Amino acid sequence: MSQQQISVITLGVADLAVSRRFYVEGFGWAPVFENDEIVFYQMNGLMLGTWLKAAMEADMGGAPLDGRSAIALAHNVEDEAAVRALVDRLAAFGGKILRPPDAPPHGGFRGHIADPDGHPWEIAWNPAWPISPEGYVTFGL
Amino acid sequence: MSQQQISVITLGVADLAVSRRFYVEGFGWAPVFENDEIVFYQMNGLMLGTWLKAAMEADMGGAPLDGRSAIALAHNVEDEAAVRALVDRLAAFGGKILRPPDAPPHGGFRGHIADPDGHPWEIAWNPAWPISPEGYVTFGL
Repeated sequence: MSQQQISVITLGVADLAVSRRFYVEGFGWAPVFENDEIVFYQMNGLMLGTWLKAAMEADMGGAPLDGRSAIALAHNVEDEAAVRALVDRLAAFGGKILRPPDAPPHGGFRGHIADPDGHPWEIAWNPAWPISPEGYVTFGL
Repeated sequence: MSQQQISVITLGVADLAVSRRFYVEGFGWAPVFENDEIVFYQMNGLMLGTWLKAAMEADMGGAPLDGRSAIALAHNVEDEAAVRALVDRLAAFGGKILRPPDAPPHGGFRGHIADPDGHPWEIAWNPAWPISPEGYVTFGL
């Protein structure tokens, strides 16, 4: 039995400055570390890393990582208006809207937007899932 | 400024039972919720969801999500021996080794293994990054 823990999500990026603008100016997040090939953001109990894609490909065995796989990240906000506002803001800082915000069948409200490298984010309001002041998210029905 | 928070990582899967075996019997993780199209695991301050890929594709706009994108998840363990043991265990429960464990230039020890749907995991020992008993990971140098 290994701890139920994810330590890092790493996203491959083509241009660190373009990616940094989306995360720092779009989301408003502060890097905890950065050099000329990677930027780390301290998240809610885990790290988000944006790493030059060529370095990431080399590290992972050399195969090109330029397709679109079935993986999505979500970021939760406090209400429907905040979903709309953040999707608009991210679009202004290099994001591409994949699905304009609407209400899913299970309740709440959400939209999908890709970062400048095509990594998809769901921006969601989900009233059933509590979030602590530190950002720790708990499952709820 | 939006909270530095990731609420969910969703992985598209072809067969829930095959995926469940990898996460429940391989990693040893307990689902917090499951039905006939999704399994959720409560992680360290966020949720991991494994969702039938067709439903995920429909939700995200309909495009096929069957490539390999530049994204990787990491799970940290306590030492080098634990990296080797977990990679072997995951391989026995449907994982495919992408890179056998070795020491990266920045220190520590790690191997890469894909889950049954091809989603890559890095199993790592990183002595610089503290992990709390709850699994909350903090950046360190």
